[in-house]
Amino acid sequence: MSANRQVLLKSRPDGIPQAAHFEIVETKLRDLRDGEILVRNQYLSVEPAMRGWVSAVANYAQPVGLGEVMRSFATGEVVASKHAGFAVGDKVTGSFGWQDYAIVTAADITRKVTETDIPLSASLGIMGLNGITAYFGFLETCAPKPGDCVVVSTAAGSVGSAVGQIAKLMGCRTIGISGGPQKVQLCLDEFGYDVALDYRAQTDLRAALANACPRGVDCYFDNTSGPISDAVYANLAAGARITICGTASVASWDPPPLGARVERMILVKRARMSGFLAFDYMHRKEEALTRLAGWIRAGHLRWREDISDGIESAPGAIAELYRGENLGKRLIRLHA
Amino acid sequence: MSANRQVLLKSRPDGIPQAAHFEIVETKLRDLRDGEILVRNQYLSVEPAMRGWVSAVANYAQPVGLGEVMRSFATGEVVASKHAGFAVGDKVTGSFGWQDYAIVTAADITRKVTETDIPLSASLGIMGLNGITAYFGFLETCAPKPGDCVVVSTAAGSVGSAVGQIAKLMGCRTIGISGGPQKVQLCLDEFGYDVALDYRAQTDLRAALANACPRGVDCYFDNTSGPISDAVYANLAAGARITICGTASVASWDPPPLGARVERMILVKRARMSGFLAFDYMHRKEEALTRLAGWIRAGHLRWREDISDGIESAPGAIAELYRGENLGKRLIRLHA
Repeated sequence: MSANRQVLLKSRPDGIPQAAHFEIVETKLRDLRDGEILVRNQYLSVEPAMRGWVSAVANYAQPVGLGEVMRSFATGEVVASKHAGFAVGDKVTGSFGWQDYAIVTAADITRKVTETDIPLSASLGIMGLNGITAYFGFLETCAPKPGDCVVVSTAAGSVGSAVGQIAKLMGCRTIGISGGPQKVQLCLDEFGYDVALDYRAQTDLRAALANACPRGVDCYFDNTSGPISDAVYANLAAGARITICGTASVASWDPPPLGARVERMILVKRARMSGFLAFDYMHRKEEALTRLAGWIRAGHLRWREDISDGIESAPGAIAELYRGENLGKRLIRLHA
Repeated sequence: MSANRQVLLKSRPDGIPQAAHFEIVETKLRDLRDGEILVRNQYLSVEPAMRGWVSAVANYAQPVGLGEVMRSFATGEVVASKHAGFAVGDKVTGSFGWQDYAIVTAADITRKVTETDIPLSASLGIMGLNGITAYFGFLETCAPKPGDCVVVSTAAGSVGSAVGQIAKLMGCRTIGISGGPQKVQLCLDEFGYDVALDYRAQTDLRAALANACPRGVDCYFDNTSGPISDAVYANLAAGARITICGTASVASWDPPPLGARVERMILVKRARMSGFLAFDYMHRKEEALTRLAGWIRAGHLRWREDISDGIESAPGAIAELYRGENLGKRLIRLHA
């Protein structure tokens, strides 16, 4: 266990990171110092946010440095510990990077995973940042009411699918927007959307939304910030709440792309558009995870995973994500 | 008193209403029916919102019909009444139209003006819709905290100047943006802004704002929705609150003008952009007016009026407003 394969950031991408921006190296593990914990990663996560993490443009997180291990959430098991709070065998999740083993401090560990009846991989999705994002992003900034018409973009994605299901649990009517017939079918069959729209197949998404939401859109949970949003904005109900959770449809914000100005629509509809970053809610994560675990155990919440085996599949995985090739939370499994 | 001069909407403007879109006619007053009240207008109001009221494009109010009396707030005195709740001599304010006399029902009357120590004309400004707009628009949707850096566009205007002063009363640092040296001087001398910026004289408003708000803009109260906003958006602090109260810098929203997409800025700064319409808060108007009257009596709140005499000055007054020619709330006085 002394050899550690690591995925390093080799060059800074202009736009979406590709496999060529990374390199895999093998390094030797050093000994643990006092207070450190050695985690053997079982699953690595792949996030849309990674585009931002490797961008030199100022963002809400410091960029990953060139030559550094790619920042990543991961989940695994403590295999050695010089910290009294963590014992060998503990399952943990946190910011462990794209590598086999991570030498971490307690500050890098998000939490011990105690829900042993739920698969460990879920701690990188529905029982992790995706679930926490969906829970607070939807409940706090969309502030849904029973009967509200809720539109979710990237509706079959790991955050979007959770939002759609939580919205149903809140008594809302749910409209999912996703790309391609497979994802539309998933929206209807697995995630319980009342209506699922394939934005690629729609010649007039705005009209399709008007048809699906005749009294207007009360809540819009968005991960795209592009033409899908423009179609939703044209259908807002008075008092609509928009949550900006991601901007997946925009390849580069430097400079920002042009779009129709939103101010008059915001004004006339007395709408509210809020940016949401899950990290602002991490101090309340147990509140979300307790409720999410309850819904999972009651069979009310489903999720999908798209798992590839081996660290070699990591470098190209962000680009795959942006091509929309995955059906479910994109994970990399390092061992069984 | 049987002859009533009225300003009628003659044709529908494409953009900003000009004098030629109206005509003045003289009609004969009919007798009052049961429940009606005859109001003799003393002051008529001129509002930026009038552009929307005469536009055929769906808006938050039904458009004024061609041949109808121009919709307007006004203030005056009851001169005849067949309603038990209103007596001759009562001062009232409400939606009375651009005319000498208005036959109204109780539903058209916003309130009786009981603050006899404050000039009646104030009921069309600081003690009326402008004050209520500033009060709730700023306190409720900007949610200021002491020490916040507050930027106000149209800072010397009747709403903006009230926002700037309320912000100071709340312990905020205030930055006013207005056009021309006269308004900048007003901002500093009368309305107590900490910094006043002339957007016409700035070659780089974005940099000037960065200099005035080194820790970023916490609250932005906007009436413009154009390039001034773009400069403010580039300087937001994390957690910024933006209130869209008006869109004065945009001559036509059909189609909406293009601008830099705001979603990533909203996301990264976890900002909140809210549309504000004072009518949503009219059920709480006495709460605002009580507090505003208290501030006025304590000498904490100043306002300016720009009054022209005679109903003949009404038709061209909206265009004057959009040219930014007025210094203070634009009113038309019909009699002393």
